[in-house]
Amino acid sequence: MKLIRYEYEGVIRKGKLIDGFVYPQVEGPTFPLPLEEVKLHVPIEPTKIIMVGLNYAKHAKEMGFVEQRPNEPIIFIKPNTTIQNNGGEIILPPQSQQVEFEGELGVVISVKCKNVKKEQAKDVILGYFVANDVTARDLQPKLGQWTACKAFDTFLPVGSWIETELDLTSAKIVTKLNGEIRQSSPISAMLFSVEELIEYISSIMTLMPGDVIITGSPPGVGKFDVDDVIEVSISGCGTLINIAKMPV
Amino acid sequence: MKLIRYEYEGVIRKGKLIDGFVYPQVEGPTFPLPLEEVKLHVPIEPTKIIMVGLNYAKHAKEMGFVEQRPNEPIIFIKPNTTIQNNGGEIILPPQSQQVEFEGELGVVISVKCKNVKKEQAKDVILGYFVANDVTARDLQPKLGQWTACKAFDTFLPVGSWIETELDLTSAKIVTKLNGEIRQSSPISAMLFSVEELIEYISSIMTLMPGDVIITGSPPGVGKFDVDDVIEVSISGCGTLINIAKMPV
Repeated sequence: MKLIRYEYEGVIRKGKLIDGFVYPQVEGPTFPLPLEEVKLHVPIEPTKIIMVGLNYAKHAKEMGFVEQRPNEPIIFIKPNTTIQNNGGEIILPPQSQQVEFEGELGVVISVKCKNVKKEQAKDVILGYFVANDVTARDLQPKLGQWTACKAFDTFLPVGSWIETELDLTSAKIVTKLNGEIRQSSPISAMLFSVEELIEYISSIMTLMPGDVIITGSPPGVGKFDVDDVIEVSISGCGTLINIAKMPV
Repeated sequence: MKLIRYEYEGVIRKGKLIDGFVYPQVEGPTFPLPLEEVKLHVPIEPTKIIMVGLNYAKHAKEMGFVEQRPNEPIIFIKPNTTIQNNGGEIILPPQSQQVEFEGELGVVISVKCKNVKKEQAKDVILGYFVANDVTARDLQPKLGQWTACKAFDTFLPVGSWIETELDLTSAKIVTKLNGEIRQSSPISAMLFSVEELIEYISSIMTLMPGDVIITGSPPGVGKFDVDDVIEVSISGCGTLINIAKMPV
């Protein structure tokens, strides 16, 4: 099922998208709307956005780190002001000369939870979405904090819906730059699985309903420039398309 | 003026604390309540908590870094689930054998803003509060991401109010461990001033009303153990007292 947030007659509601029709997420009889008649908003409203770094071995290698699983996942946090719509613009900050795409799988948490074991992690997952962890690479210190270079406004485009059913053993992530494939990897190549990430992160902090974990990028990350089109797809989960623009 | 959030008759409201009386923050005639009759909640409700690292030269030195101003402030983000009340418990996580206090000044943003110049930074400050950036030091990689070791639940105790008037040129921060002074520094010893921090951070991300910037710790940070009492005071801004406990 595809969970969305949509705007109709000036009101933003939660709903479901089924066969091109939008159904409000309410009890009782519902009246479907054609998708064309609503405006889709970002489907996520997290209280925190937990990012995972270097979670694919070959991406770790291309970034100059060792090509192996670290003892623990590497995490950092993006502010909510990075969130951008599917179809929205990625604004290139004047501070950076090298802004890069990183196609990633996002996971949405369904319930307040702490100390979730990996065997139970599926029980706290609402669904999945496509994301792009945009990064000002020239501002990223190899041995310092990554927050600043990844925290610019519009640096977290997310797909139009949360997909509640996704087979992670077969799903594949593909990123295209102006139509050319630049990243292509099975999700299953992650060093720490979604379940292991939930176990680790929830051993540190309470996760709230709607919180998101964005699970790291496969190899092939790269620079994009003004007017470039970046397209991230996850099979079974949808496609996220954004265009890069200069600030107005 | 001291801005608070208080609970009375089961309802949480914003208000002001004046001479031991609580006034609701509403228009029209107001009826003061004695402070003893309300329950104070944390005064901040940020959409993001931006932390500044190594912002006092001698603390940078004690952490094994160079004792000088870096080119830019070092920032990272704490999740909101770290926030703890004045008087609340700091829960020592089983993963760590070395949890440390870091007394710090917090700043609350008043309006949505981007690209604020330091000369105008005062215009976007609502006020100040006392904070403790609790850190699991043994889990902090010197050359890696600091998020995890600082993101445990209850690892951000904050004072009871937002003080709108504070003279940063004279204010002093003092941290006591079980009554013994462990940190004592003028706020003015910061490498990057509050105004410079706002300029830097707002050049990256849009700041929202209620967002907070926590400005780094002076030297003297140190370990505390179960049942220890940690007291952070900023002259003119109040005192924050917490006790350390094991998880139940």
